Formats: sequence, structure tokens, C-alpha cells
Amino acid sequence: MAALAACSAERPAAVPAPPASPPAGMQYLYGSGEAAALSAQAYRALVAHAAERVKARPVDSVVLAAGATLAVPVFVPCGDKPFAAVFDVDETVLLNTGFEFHDARTGKGYDAAVWDAWEKTGEGAVGPVPGADRALGALRAMGVTVVFNTNRSAANADATVRAIRAAGLGDAVHGQTLFLSGDDATGSRKDGRRATIAARYCVIALGGDQLGDFSDLFNAGQAVPARRAATMQPSVASLWGDGWFMLPNPVYGSGLKGSFDDIFPTDKRWTPPVQAQQ
Amino acid sequence: MAALAACSAERPAAVPAPPASPPAGMQYLYGSGEAAALSAQAYRALVAHAAERVKARPVDSVVLAAGATLAVPVFVPCGDKPFAAVFDVDETVLLNTGFEFHDARTGKGYDAAVWDAWEKTGEGAVGPVPGADRALGALRAMGVTVVFNTNRSAANADATVRAIRAAGLGDAVHGQTLFLSGDDATGSRKDGRRATIAARYCVIALGGDQLGDFSDLFNAGQAVPARRAATMQPSVASLWGDGWFMLPNPVYGSGLKGSFDDIFPTDKRWTPPVQAQQ
Repeated sequence: MAALAACSAERPAAVPAPPASPPAGMQYLYGSGEAAALSAQAYRALVAHAAERVKARPVDSVVLAAGATLAVPVFVPCGDKPFAAVFDVDETVLLNTGFEFHDARTGKGYDAAVWDAWEKTGEGAVGPVPGADRALGALRAMGVTVVFNTNRSAANADATVRAIRAAGLGDAVHGQTLFLSGDDATGSRKDGRRATIAARYCVIALGGDQLGDFSDLFNAGQAVPARRAATMQPSVASLWGDGWFMLPNPVYGSGLKGSFDDIFPTDKRWTPPVQAQQ
Repeated sequence: MAALAACSAERPAAVPAPPASPPAGMQYLYGSGEAAALSAQAYRALVAHAAERVKARPVDSVVLAAGATLAVPVFVPCGDKPFAAVFDVDETVLLNTGFEFHDARTGKGYDAAVWDAWEKTGEGAVGPVPGADRALGALRAMGVTVVFNTNRSAANADATVRAIRAAGLGDAVHGQTLFLSGDDATGSRKDGRRATIAARYCVIALGGDQLGDFSDLFNAGQAVPARRAATMQPSVASLWGDGWFMLPNPVYGSGLKGSFDDIFPTDKRWTPPVQAQQ
């Protein structure tokens, strides 16, 4: 019987063996102390920044106003609106550990139906990004409303509220402190939802793992090198760590693009001398 | 002639075709705006931290003293020593763009002889980590000595000085502001070199992309989950962004390890319901 069960003919050809270990990006993000430190560091800076702004109310929020450009950023004014900090959810405050396990095991890549099922049923297999749970608690304790702006589906709002709570990230109410894809007609773009939030709150911090969590202007079809350069132009570079807070995500998203020509400029290439190649 | 040149028999079987695009981790680190933002954010926090410490001299440095543990960290005192900030080099202040191009094209993995050739001849194909060049300039302008502590080889000290300069990171002098593998008998471990530096300077900031850039205690053979947990225990977690500054590196190093059991705890796994798999 054991010999029969071990026979390779018993295994359906359509099911490849799972890989020996998770992809490098997942090892880094979900398993390393290095990535945990990066996240903790980002959340420390965010809370310190928020504490300063609560003490001395700023004139402007950190949400770009309609018509602003990255070269000449103009921000929605704060007025006397209550303070808020706005966060993406996935891989910003919440680690999708269970989904990524499935993804790594099967190696099938993104599938919208599977992701939808994850949104609906994943609450038992999530956790906080290191430092996020404590940071969100600290923000609320200083009177800053925590608002989530995510591309999870409005149709799954209740399940996403449960997942946020299960990750130790507190409560969220759809339309008040939770904004989702489908809340307006702009799909996965977030500027419209940010404008809605910034009309009600003085937003003193944005947190995200994708440039689209800060402005849709980064996703206007630029080439990969131009998009990177856009983040480092002086008008934008000064925002990182001073209102805009980036979390690491080398597993998926808009940062994982680019050809050899995009990633390695021709004047920064190297080939070893012949003797080193032997 | 064209047909002959295109014949596959002309191509030696030992040379596989290069991959269509660089690995995801390289796309992220060398090409994305997301990673550039993470680096700029870390350097902003580091410079702000240093400015505070220069204004109000701390009693202790941020270098662990001999006999310290991660659970009970004790630091080398500052006394009236001059201020310094200590940085790893590779993927902390300097991007090894040329080497990684070669690595991505060949897919052969790490080779000590090729890396040695890179240390010797790579100076034309490096650049600064986003934000590092400006940060190092700002530190020097406020009277903080910039010291490099790297596992590049002492035998290649002169070439490494040239590479640091070529990346726009200023000057380094071996034995004074540049410490290398081979400077002492402890190989790639950095605690001994850190002790040498902390005996001469009041070290107010450490910057690195690997946990070993902060303490060798992270590399004492812990299992992957224990190593991550070590970074998040309260005594250590409070250092990230407050003396210890992490830079992203999902391309190589001690953060890219771990089995499925290491990365995905058994209580955080998920499989889609049957209907989502069809």
C-alpha cells in the first residue's frame, strides 16, 4: 500500500510540487528582522511627527489639493478640522500572511476570485505590520482619528472591518473611518477618497506601501525611471518621513516593475574582468 | 550569413539566455520610487536625530558595550569624545548597481572571486542610496564624523575609498573613517570594529541594511522567527529610528532566509474555499 501511495502515477500531473521555500521577497517582508525594523522605524517617525502637529496645528494637511502637481505641490488646508492620519491597509498596517502562504505554495500568481475570497474569509490569518498596532493606538490616544483608505472592495466592507480588528488595529466604520474601492467611480485610484477624507479632517500623516497611497500622480503612466525620479525631486523628497510615511513591500505592487534598461542605466553596468570569471 | 548567425547551434550550450527582466527584489530596490522613498525617509530621520544629539550631548552612544545583551542593552558611554555616525557601505550608503546588473544577467549567484573583482574595479558603476549623499553631507556640516564599517576586504581599501568617493559620499581614510573585513581577527563580524570606533567617538547613529550592522548578537544562530522577534522586543524595538536606522535590502543578505514553517506560522495559513479555486 505504501509503495502504491508513493507511486508518481498517483499524483495528478496538474499539481506541481510546492517550492522548497517561499520567494525571497516574502522571506524578507514576513520573516526578517530587517523588514520588521524598517516598519517599526517608519511608525516611530509617524507617531513623533503626529505628536508635533497635534501640539502645533499646521496650516495645511499633507493631502495634495485638486490641481496640484508633484513639482509644485499644493495641499488641502486644515482649517479647524479634527486631526486624522490616513493609512492604506494591506502591507501597510496589516500583513496578509494567510493569503501570501497560499500564493507562495501554489505559485499561481494573482487571481481576483481568490483575493475576493481572502477579503471575505481571511480574518483568522492576518497580523499587524510590526509597530502598526502600537502606533495606531498612540495616534488615537492623542486624539488623532485613524482612517483607512484601501482598495479592498466596498462589497466586502464588513469582512474588512473584522480583519482590521483581528489584526489588533482597532475599529473601522465604512464611510467614516474606512474608505474602499467602489465608494466612488474612480476604481483603485485613491485621490477622490483622499479628497473626501481631507474635506472632513486635517490629515497630518499618510501611511502606505505603494506610491498610490500618497498621490495618484505617481501612477500617470510614467516610465519606471521617471517614476523613481519623481519621488526624489526636492518638492516630493522632503515629504518622506515628514507627513508621508512609506512601509516596505517587495512582494507585490507598483514597485515591482522594470526591464533591464529601466533598472540598470547603461552607464552603471559592469562585467567582471576575464580572470574573475574563471 | 544572417541565417547562420541565428542558428541555435552557434550558441554554446553552457550559456543560458539572460532572463527577460531583473528579479523582483532588484526591480524594487534599484528601480522603484517606493524603495527610494523608504531610503530618503530613513536618512531624514537619521539627520534629525543627529541634530538633536549634537545640540544636547547624550550620556551614552548607540553602540552596545561588551557583555550587553539584546534584552538588557548597555551602551558604550560618550564622555567628551567627538561625534560620529557609523554606516555600513553596500546597499546602506552605496548602491552596487553594476554588480547587480551582472548578477541579474548571469543568474549565477554569489561568487567570491567576482565580488572581489567588483570591489577592485566597480567604482564606475555605483551610485548613492537615495538620500545618503545629502545626509552624509549634512552630518559632516554639523561636525559629525562619518565612519564606514563594511565587510569589503582590507586588501581592497584603496579601491573602496575610490568607490565611496565616486558614489558622491565623500572621503574615507582606512583605519580612521573606514573599517574593513581583515582589520581584526573576527572576519565579517562587526562588533570588534564598532568597539574600536566607539572608543574614539561618541557614536550617535548607526545605519545599515543588515542586523549585523547594529549588533552581532542578531547573528548568534537564532531560528528565523526568533531573530525577527529579537528586533521587536521592547528593549530593541525602541532603537529603530532612534539611534539605529535601517535601510531596505530585499536583494541579498541575512534577511532572505526561512522555510515555509519559519515565514508562515501554522496558525496564520489560509486556503481558499473550493468555489474560489475554480
